[in-house]
Amino acid sequence: MAKVAVLGYGTVGSGVVDVLDQNAAEVSGSAGEKIELKYILDLREFPGDRHESQVVHDIDIILNDPEVEVICETMGGLEPAFSFAKKALEKGKSVCTSNKELVAAHGPELVELAKKNGKSYLFEASVGGGIPLLRTINDSMKHEKIDSITGILNGTTNYILTKMDKEGMGFATVLKAAQDKGYAEKNPEADVEGYDACRKIAILASLMSGKHVNYEDIYTEGISRVSIEDFDYARCLGMSIKLLAMCKRSDSGFFTMVSPFLIPNENPLANVNGVFNAINIHSNMLGDVMFYGKGAGKNATASAVVADVIDIVKHKNQHIDVNMKAEKAILSPKDSAVRQFFVRVPSTLKEQANDIFGDTIEEVSGVNVHGEYAFITRDLSEKDFEEKLWKMDSVKGYLRIY
Amino acid sequence: MAKVAVLGYGTVGSGVVDVLDQNAAEVSGSAGEKIELKYILDLREFPGDRHESQVVHDIDIILNDPEVEVICETMGGLEPAFSFAKKALEKGKSVCTSNKELVAAHGPELVELAKKNGKSYLFEASVGGGIPLLRTINDSMKHEKIDSITGILNGTTNYILTKMDKEGMGFATVLKAAQDKGYAEKNPEADVEGYDACRKIAILASLMSGKHVNYEDIYTEGISRVSIEDFDYARCLGMSIKLLAMCKRSDSGFFTMVSPFLIPNENPLANVNGVFNAINIHSNMLGDVMFYGKGAGKNATASAVVADVIDIVKHKNQHIDVNMKAEKAILSPKDSAVRQFFVRVPSTLKEQANDIFGDTIEEVSGVNVHGEYAFITRDLSEKDFEEKLWKMDSVKGYLRIY
Repeated sequence: MAKVAVLGYGTVGSGVVDVLDQNAAEVSGSAGEKIELKYILDLREFPGDRHESQVVHDIDIILNDPEVEVICETMGGLEPAFSFAKKALEKGKSVCTSNKELVAAHGPELVELAKKNGKSYLFEASVGGGIPLLRTINDSMKHEKIDSITGILNGTTNYILTKMDKEGMGFATVLKAAQDKGYAEKNPEADVEGYDACRKIAILASLMSGKHVNYEDIYTEGISRVSIEDFDYARCLGMSIKLLAMCKRSDSGFFTMVSPFLIPNENPLANVNGVFNAINIHSNMLGDVMFYGKGAGKNATASAVVADVIDIVKHKNQHIDVNMKAEKAILSPKDSAVRQFFVRVPSTLKEQANDIFGDTIEEVSGVNVHGEYAFITRDLSEKDFEEKLWKMDSVKGYLRIY
Repeated sequence: MAKVAVLGYGTVGSGVVDVLDQNAAEVSGSAGEKIELKYILDLREFPGDRHESQVVHDIDIILNDPEVEVICETMGGLEPAFSFAKKALEKGKSVCTSNKELVAAHGPELVELAKKNGKSYLFEASVGGGIPLLRTINDSMKHEKIDSITGILNGTTNYILTKMDKEGMGFATVLKAAQDKGYAEKNPEADVEGYDACRKIAILASLMSGKHVNYEDIYTEGISRVSIEDFDYARCLGMSIKLLAMCKRSDSGFFTMVSPFLIPNENPLANVNGVFNAINIHSNMLGDVMFYGKGAGKNATASAVVADVIDIVKHKNQHIDVNMKAEKAILSPKDSAVRQFFVRVPSTLKEQANDIFGDTIEEVSGVNVHGEYAFITRDLSEKDFEEKLWKMDSVKGYLRIY
């Protein structure tokens, strides 16, 4: 019998309790022993809740109870989650979490602390919701040399881009509809500006590098400047527009970025629609493997937290090795990344564009946007591209090509 | 230091040796200790091979060497692989394999034998090539109630169907081209008749049921009767045609089948093209999760074998639980499975079709196939459908709809 405490009885926390209740037989079968909820920490009371009697308001009750072996931190945010996780590990309890902000900021440090105490710090639910991704990278693929991880890591923005594409509505209209349906937050900044995807790719990049990739060092662009016209051009090019988060290994370090990209429809990531997430991993022996599923949602995310609880119970009194350290990873600068770009300028500037971008540019025709000249550049470094863009009198929009 | 023997120095076996050589540091890092190849069993000599001195011809040298902890059986076929695996487990060695024929036929029995001896029998590489699938089902998803597993499990047939669709060529022409390119075997029966997919879904169904689903009990149809005209209709319906292998849990048991299906393009399985495999798993908390990758290929398959070796070394002297038993699973009869069907008959038989299939059928128009009447039935059991089909004077073709 292993006893568990859940910190935070919100969406994910109550989902964890539901999974432990509804799948009790499967959970015990998988762990090899019964797993029992002992405490729920929350500031609120939950009168009438079937677990009402287990709700406590003082973290020390949990930390000082030697029976509690595993703590599920489903509070979100940096504090007090960070302090609680640290104290729990120091008290010899293992911790698992869905808290991507905390893992992106302090995950490697908490993994080291767990190791020092012979306990575990796991965070399957922090990336890709219920998709069994991190355990796969950390277990089944750890003997592979991973070259790149590229993912659609935010369901809200993928839903918005899909709607814009399929229904020809503008960003603001779709965002409003998504907010009305509860698919987007009232304050949508974390999603639409790419901050959420940025934290998730920071976690994946840390796992890939074995060190710490700080999310603040990742170049991040959101989707608010993607227009309906961009989708017209994309269709004409046989491409889709997706917000990609990526990490690539290169000789000069790890290149990471979050940005909207044009992706050829042959790439399976181009066909990932709606609230779904997908993550492609390329490694030296396996080649490409892709994981696909709902990247959010109460039950799916909770199920991933419970998978961590089970892993911890199966490896009692043993540190489950997670491939990251507090040491900073060496990042390759954005400026030197090379790719093609799609650019739209006023048609009056066609000559200027040709002068600046050279005669190797490829005009994109077949789209009925009045007064525009659209083209695809040759391979350019990000720095070259930016310098050329600055020389243009006016630019209506541009997109990176994957 | 853990010592390994590879049985069979063919495609997969030599791939295993390559992975152990080329990713030696990553393999040791993942396992927590060095993994060293000690023997290769093969009837042939390999003069000049860098592992020439490790090649032996007598299995007993390996079985009687107490240093060998893990045996990779990459011979394929039932015998002598079955006898070798049994002897190895009885001698207290763990075994991992890519041999789907053997796992489908005797996997549950070998898992039980491994358990009895406190050792492990693992077979990640037997389904989906390098896609990390079985470990995920067995570890990360074991606390889920899995309702269904549906997959494109054979790359050769998916390549053929994709070519037929995109290039409008008939089955025989594409098969010939695939054989010339080495994508299909000279004797293509195992692939095109669905036998390979059948063995793989038998393994997945056994894992899902926790018992043994015998591949001989799975209704299996191949792709040889799929025609170019079927693809014309599919496009018109906004669907694709894929060879699906499926296992669904129902009140009356596990329903399993391998057959070509029409799948709506919104389903991500419809967009899996070429030699790729994809497996969708639906479970009660996680919902849908899909895994995608190359289902075959030397290095990818070998990498999956090595993942098993690492798992075994990490859990030394411990049986890694695999959810299957030699006891037969209860299967739900094919006859009672209910679905819609797409049917093509000579246009002269339109009235007969309407009489037999009822006035709820939906005509499929918009396809320029001369002299044909094509329609979609209402939901019918397989048995009802078959009985109606027998009453028709002539049928040009039919497909199940997913």
